[in-house]
Amino acid sequence: MSFSMSQASVPAFVIGLNALSGVLDKAEAFAAAKKIDPAVLPNTRLAPDMFSLTRQVQVATDLAKKGAARLAGGEPPVFEDTETTIEQLKARIAKTVTYLKTLDAKAIDASAEREITFPLGPTNKGHMKGDDYLNHFVLPNFYFHLTAAYAIVRHCGVDIGKRDFLGAIPLTMT
Amino acid sequence: MSFSMSQASVPAFVIGLNALSGVLDKAEAFAAAKKIDPAVLPNTRLAPDMFSLTRQVQVATDLAKKGAARLAGGEPPVFEDTETTIEQLKARIAKTVTYLKTLDAKAIDASAEREITFPLGPTNKGHMKGDDYLNHFVLPNFYFHLTAAYAIVRHCGVDIGKRDFLGAIPLTMT
Repeated sequence: MSFSMSQASVPAFVIGLNALSGVLDKAEAFAAAKKIDPAVLPNTRLAPDMFSLTRQVQVATDLAKKGAARLAGGEPPVFEDTETTIEQLKARIAKTVTYLKTLDAKAIDASAEREITFPLGPTNKGHMKGDDYLNHFVLPNFYFHLTAAYAIVRHCGVDIGKRDFLGAIPLTMT
Repeated sequence: MSFSMSQASVPAFVIGLNALSGVLDKAEAFAAAKKIDPAVLPNTRLAPDMFSLTRQVQVATDLAKKGAARLAGGEPPVFEDTETTIEQLKARIAKTVTYLKTLDAKAIDASAEREITFPLGPTNKGHMKGDDYLNHFVLPNFYFHLTAAYAIVRHCGVDIGKRDFLGAIPLTMT
């Protein structure tokens, strides 16, 4: 009957982010093979008023980092949004995964009933109970930006499938 | 310190699916206002080899319905994949939400350590522990197809934003 806030957060973020890094590996190889300017894919968007691939990766990593940090009751490290290449985006993902692994699972587990306050846009603040914040804000938003990044790469013609999105999940196949 | 499998599944599916229904409302109004053939949006894809909007909605509802049913240890109702209009897709979402609300939370909570077996493609089977199945298969896949449906609608020019994607989450804003 075990299920916990720490289990539903950090391992899902780590697997999802490592999967995103694998998607970016394939995007990088695709651009190199087709001699596409390395700046093109990071700047691609699904619609003119949607985020670029670069911004999708920045936001996905920030949701994991800031979401988990707020639940654990700590201050996340600040990453400047300066990435311009896929290699730099992968480095940001790696830094995020390293940080996530330092968080205290017990502190995250203790946050279910605690009120979490977080910025919403430039001037507003959001307030949610810890369990709702994970369940109805951080996880949906995290997967939203992970999927958007995947869809941009897929839209560019890179040969990726659902397994690349899911990553190294604990699955046995028969 | 409360957090449970039932809490991390059914309410997230219900809020996400109701949000998707709201996105489809806006898509329907957009098509009507622009006198777009009602068959166009349901058949739109982000890439020729990605699912259409219709299929994204069918798969998102099936993930919620079958995922939650397997965790609860029951058999989900079968919905034929016959929808051709947005109105029919919204009816499928409503049927799914109604079904989800019938599931026994205690049965879902008891499934964390139980092995879940599920079809993977036409011939294979996947095996995962209940908690991993929810955490690393059902939730990422559910949000993947919800986001893909949202992105198709957004790509068509419908004026929707992140709040339409998140839906009626328990959030207080100051």
